[in-house]
Amino acid sequence: MDRESFRLELAQQLRVDSVRASSAAGSGHPTSSMSAADLVAALLDGHLRLDFAHPEDPRNDHLIFSKGHASPLLYSALKAVGAIDDAELLTFRAFGSRLEGHPTPMLPWVDVATGSLGQGLPIGVGLALAARRLDRLPYRVWVLCGDSEMAEGSVWEALEHAGHESLDNLIALVDVNRLGQTGETMHGWDLGSYAARARAAGWRTLEIDGHDPEQIETALKDAEAGDGRPVAVLAATRKGKGVAEVEDKPGFHGKALKHPDDAIRELGGVRDLRVTPARPETTAAPHVFAVRGGELPTFDLGETIATRRAYGEALRALGDRRGDVVALDGEVSNSTFSELFRDAHPERYFEMYIAEQQMIAAAIGMQVRGWRPFASTFAAFLTRAYDFIRMAAVSRADLRLMGSHAGVAIGEDGPSQMGLEDLAAFRAVHGSTVLYPCDANQTARLVETMADLPGISYLRTTRGATPVIYQPDEEFPVGGSKVVRDGDDVTLVGAGVTLHEALRAAGTLEREGIRARVIDLYSIKPVDAVALRRAASETRGLVTAEDHWPEGGLGEAVLSAIAGSPTPVRLLAPHLMPGSGTPAELLSQAGIDAAAIATAARELVG
Amino acid sequence: MDRESFRLELAQQLRVDSVRASSAAGSGHPTSSMSAADLVAALLDGHLRLDFAHPEDPRNDHLIFSKGHASPLLYSALKAVGAIDDAELLTFRAFGSRLEGHPTPMLPWVDVATGSLGQGLPIGVGLALAARRLDRLPYRVWVLCGDSEMAEGSVWEALEHAGHESLDNLIALVDVNRLGQTGETMHGWDLGSYAARARAAGWRTLEIDGHDPEQIETALKDAEAGDGRPVAVLAATRKGKGVAEVEDKPGFHGKALKHPDDAIRELGGVRDLRVTPARPETTAAPHVFAVRGGELPTFDLGETIATRRAYGEALRALGDRRGDVVALDGEVSNSTFSELFRDAHPERYFEMYIAEQQMIAAAIGMQVRGWRPFASTFAAFLTRAYDFIRMAAVSRADLRLMGSHAGVAIGEDGPSQMGLEDLAAFRAVHGSTVLYPCDANQTARLVETMADLPGISYLRTTRGATPVIYQPDEEFPVGGSKVVRDGDDVTLVGAGVTLHEALRAAGTLEREGIRARVIDLYSIKPVDAVALRRAASETRGLVTAEDHWPEGGLGEAVLSAIAGSPTPVRLLAPHLMPGSGTPAELLSQAGIDAAAIATAARELVG
Repeated sequence: MDRESFRLELAQQLRVDSVRASSAAGSGHPTSSMSAADLVAALLDGHLRLDFAHPEDPRNDHLIFSKGHASPLLYSALKAVGAIDDAELLTFRAFGSRLEGHPTPMLPWVDVATGSLGQGLPIGVGLALAARRLDRLPYRVWVLCGDSEMAEGSVWEALEHAGHESLDNLIALVDVNRLGQTGETMHGWDLGSYAARARAAGWRTLEIDGHDPEQIETALKDAEAGDGRPVAVLAATRKGKGVAEVEDKPGFHGKALKHPDDAIRELGGVRDLRVTPARPETTAAPHVFAVRGGELPTFDLGETIATRRAYGEALRALGDRRGDVVALDGEVSNSTFSELFRDAHPERYFEMYIAEQQMIAAAIGMQVRGWRPFASTFAAFLTRAYDFIRMAAVSRADLRLMGSHAGVAIGEDGPSQMGLEDLAAFRAVHGSTVLYPCDANQTARLVETMADLPGISYLRTTRGATPVIYQPDEEFPVGGSKVVRDGDDVTLVGAGVTLHEALRAAGTLEREGIRARVIDLYSIKPVDAVALRRAASETRGLVTAEDHWPEGGLGEAVLSAIAGSPTPVRLLAPHLMPGSGTPAELLSQAGIDAAAIATAARELVG
Repeated sequence: MDRESFRLELAQQLRVDSVRASSAAGSGHPTSSMSAADLVAALLDGHLRLDFAHPEDPRNDHLIFSKGHASPLLYSALKAVGAIDDAELLTFRAFGSRLEGHPTPMLPWVDVATGSLGQGLPIGVGLALAARRLDRLPYRVWVLCGDSEMAEGSVWEALEHAGHESLDNLIALVDVNRLGQTGETMHGWDLGSYAARARAAGWRTLEIDGHDPEQIETALKDAEAGDGRPVAVLAATRKGKGVAEVEDKPGFHGKALKHPDDAIRELGGVRDLRVTPARPETTAAPHVFAVRGGELPTFDLGETIATRRAYGEALRALGDRRGDVVALDGEVSNSTFSELFRDAHPERYFEMYIAEQQMIAAAIGMQVRGWRPFASTFAAFLTRAYDFIRMAAVSRADLRLMGSHAGVAIGEDGPSQMGLEDLAAFRAVHGSTVLYPCDANQTARLVETMADLPGISYLRTTRGATPVIYQPDEEFPVGGSKVVRDGDDVTLVGAGVTLHEALRAAGTLEREGIRARVIDLYSIKPVDAVALRRAASETRGLVTAEDHWPEGGLGEAVLSAIAGSPTPVRLLAPHLMPGSGTPAELLSQAGIDAAAIATAARELVG
């Protein structure tokens, strides 16, 4: 069989297996798989350099199905390369199967979960950046995109960033099958409209018939010949290609075929072709950054310094000690102090401009290759990337995120800049760790800890300076807390800025003869249930104070920990939309300053 | 004074007042204001058709400062048109002032809050759509954009959508001052790079020197002559223009000037020019959609129907009854059933394609003009727009959002499609209402209620069919709950799918002699604290079950309501990352099915 015939046959096999898998499941997206089968057949046969027997090989190319709903095609491809067998293919979408409805890294050949559209290409940018600037290896990143998902702004962030960074190791294969879930896309088969957009962002574009093996081969070869620009192969295809009942017809998105046996016959029947993708050509090892060692920064008791600055200093020091730490920022590095890392380790710093989705996606891509990204921006603006963070948890990604300028305590800039929902949002991310330090030494230790934490860890920092209350050698285990002042009358629970307000309140209360225990709940998730339950049983009430909306934050974390305790709890949190003002005015208005905490404590013990 | 001289003088006054306001505040963004002063001076003097004495006039043009940090310029403009006086100008950023660090609708001339970058243009798309397709009035929407924010994907969603909809009533003035917060933007003064991108999306572009009054006048006149394409005026400007100490220099972002008196002198001193913007030319009234009336859909007891379908039917019926209801969807209208509204009321339906940020932004823009948008997509994908939803609360916007396919109960599609953090995210939105119906009649009544709710209301719906358990005439007040089965041994609290699991568990328990009270907590926020406290005092324990991560959802809402009660509570919620499977398999694995609820109840009473 000549190459062209083999690929046509292989593509038909991928279609048949996509039909078979989705029919076995009774659901799935066979038609969205069938449109891209010729592209994937060509990719497997001579272009993708991926050793499926050793998916962990750092020299491998990467293949991301950004259109994750085309999972039947991906799994059919895995069968064709011998990575899975036919029996496993037919477990598609069954409980306990690795072949989930949308791909996840439960499969070792899947780098990241997809299925929320518009994420594959920005993550591919992260992998391509890792190849170019971190690993310094010639692997390429292939991303199969749908045409519907090109409407996502995150895709345009990726186009923009890849063009700016001249990532010619990134190749987008856009399966322009014209039909979205409900009808025609904005641009239908107008390949030129996509090409004009991508070219404007500095990409090279190739417009082809996505079912013509010759045109595909020419395009892929051309795409591999890097000229400094990322490449978009814009392929006009037909959804459901090969089965007349569904081909190029609306109304068949996300459904198993009604007559699979007829469809399989029409596609030429079941085949058992094997294809062996190329292996990586290089034998080079990934680049290793030399480090000079050094100690974490330490701060003197009583010194006042913002935790965001301590973050920057600790991150720089961490970069001195370990070569796998990298940093990204959303064009606010002089606010988050990631600029300290940037200036010390410019090769491992990535300016992502004001594009938070691309920032998080790039971090996800980099951690696929074992790098340890810390990404920072204002806490408020991480909400811009919440879907990426949610999906990162499905990807089992290890991400370290820092959100600065949390809460009303930022003062004059007003509510658009105040992170007031970040604790709730991050607590509700699967497997997350949520940390909220109150002083510089604590911040530095927690940053150090984050480097080795699995999953998604989030550090919330404060704009204004706070006094150092901990010795540099104090330890802060994840899931722990600190009793920073002892007392048996009432417990005051705070973190970050409110910890200092609680300490002031405790001083006031002491002068009135009320002995308050003050707990620094720096680990909001996991939370120190033991210390909180002990406080609930040993004192007459708990006051929690947080610079965050009342829902889903520190207060509710405490309630969860002590559920069923009869000890009364007062949750202090802002209830009004704040405006501008000084930090003191806004903490007072929000009812979370020392005076409000003391008042609540008095009511509990009185 | 000729027009050109007047505008130059007016621009200098805007600069001086920007310096004065930020110096009075001791913070703010004078340099980002100074770059755009010539553009705004020209806009006020002859182009903007806005009656500042009657900001509620539906015929007014709209002006959105997407670069919200240029608030000193906006407030200086308000002074120049006589909307505020000089004394108020100098309250900038003070506690209690309407002149917040970033603009909010506390000022009647501000439609929406800005300050999270990249939001003004997509909201402008919503207003321009309202002008064209709803109000049918010739007002125009002017959006002042920064160049840094062009990196946000949401801006490209807006470019794409405005081009697709031929919104030539939308004019973006892009203040290309080259300098971002930390350094130069991706494109510096390369106006052509922005122009190529915008043109690719179907825009008309005009490249000018943003400090040349003649070029500005020509461009604005040209922009007003609509030719079917939205217009981007790309203006090369200098940050800090007019004050040599800061002009076009990095390091002066977001800071009051060090030597304001010198700067004011350099700018020619304090002026007191007045400018009277043009009034709307039309006297037409906004379009009113004729309605035919009709009743809400009703469903028979015992019928099984998905709440998402009931949403679509109720929304269509609501559209039959009121002309102010409009619907938007993110290209999943056949899943959310907003297609029922689309087919009945095509003039009031907006297809936003897979661009959730633009969808929410468009809804925000439409509600500025009094329309009542309902926007829908999968619950999981609303996380894509979380920053827009957060900011909508700062905008005091009235939005109705529906998230379908919530929880593990969706089954085979897997975790990328499961909304499992939506309750936490929406509860943590200021002033929000969070509703989660379990049957079709309840859904219909809640949809009807949402139309008149202020603030951001969120309805969570379920993919699979659930039995109708309520009569059509049952009422469901916001903040209420229903005791759907009485009992004094233990309380089972559920909502949506878990309410049905709780009912099944109660049946099992009754056969064992345990009488369970079952509470339908359809209003997650505000929550029915009275009913929950009563249950805590009258029964021996509470079991909460929710198809949502354990943090920030129904369970913690219950804990907040009964804080201080000694009654034990068991929170049932998924703890493992789900994969694919049948809904029953996944509810069981998550420990939130009838069997798990019954087991927890037995432990509480045993």
